[in-house]
Amino acid sequence: MGTNCLLGVALAALILSSSGVMAAEQAKAPFVRIAELEIDPVQLESYKAAVKEEIETSIRVEPGVLAIYSVALKENPSQLRFFEIYKDEAAYRAHIASPHFRKYVEITKGMIRSRKLLDTVPVQLSQRPLP
Amino acid sequence: MGTNCLLGVALAALILSSSGVMAAEQAKAPFVRIAELEIDPVQLESYKAAVKEEIETSIRVEPGVLAIYSVALKENPSQLRFFEIYKDEAAYRAHIASPHFRKYVEITKGMIRSRKLLDTVPVQLSQRPLP
Repeated sequence: MGTNCLLGVALAALILSSSGVMAAEQAKAPFVRIAELEIDPVQLESYKAAVKEEIETSIRVEPGVLAIYSVALKENPSQLRFFEIYKDEAAYRAHIASPHFRKYVEITKGMIRSRKLLDTVPVQLSQRPLP
Repeated sequence: MGTNCLLGVALAALILSSSGVMAAEQAKAPFVRIAELEIDPVQLESYKAAVKEEIETSIRVEPGVLAIYSVALKENPSQLRFFEIYKDEAAYRAHIASPHFRKYVEITKGMIRSRKLLDTVPVQLSQRPLP
């Protein structure tokens, strides 16, 4: 192997390795979605049962779903807020195409009065495992 | 030990054990706080640096702080949303009394244009460790 060839191999290795670093860094920024839903109060318990099942299934079977938190506002329990963390946008797209998400949409479509989705840019995401 | 005395001991043990179960069940429901902050756009980078340090310190030194997530709205990057999970309300009170939180409040008080805090009741909180 001549000097030029060695240089070429070294250069190729350098390019491959730096693009690998970039890809890893891009993959490190999760995709975070906030959702604000108003549920028909009469159907609130049915809605909660459906969404709990959907969240539990997503975390169990989708490695790209890192967290889904659903809370009700204390002042108005039919106002729900969701904070959702996905590995990346592709993981989010896969999630909303999944059979369990489609089933949840079908079951709950008559229960949701309004839905607002907010796109976000992470500033700081820090957690420890829930007990 | 007579029969009455044994019954008394058994009853006391039952009461202690069932109150222990209740305490454990109450402790299992985390305290979740949502905050919506509008930051002075000119001071946004300084604010982010201060809040990142405050969040990292809280997760490192406070076992009762389970997660603090801070994101900016894509449509309006000076609008920040916080989703915070504490072991219980006592852990939240300890957090806002901590030296690192007091320091953050002092540093950022001139940077925050408005602050809205929302009390919540958890519906479903599911996560896996962030990569």
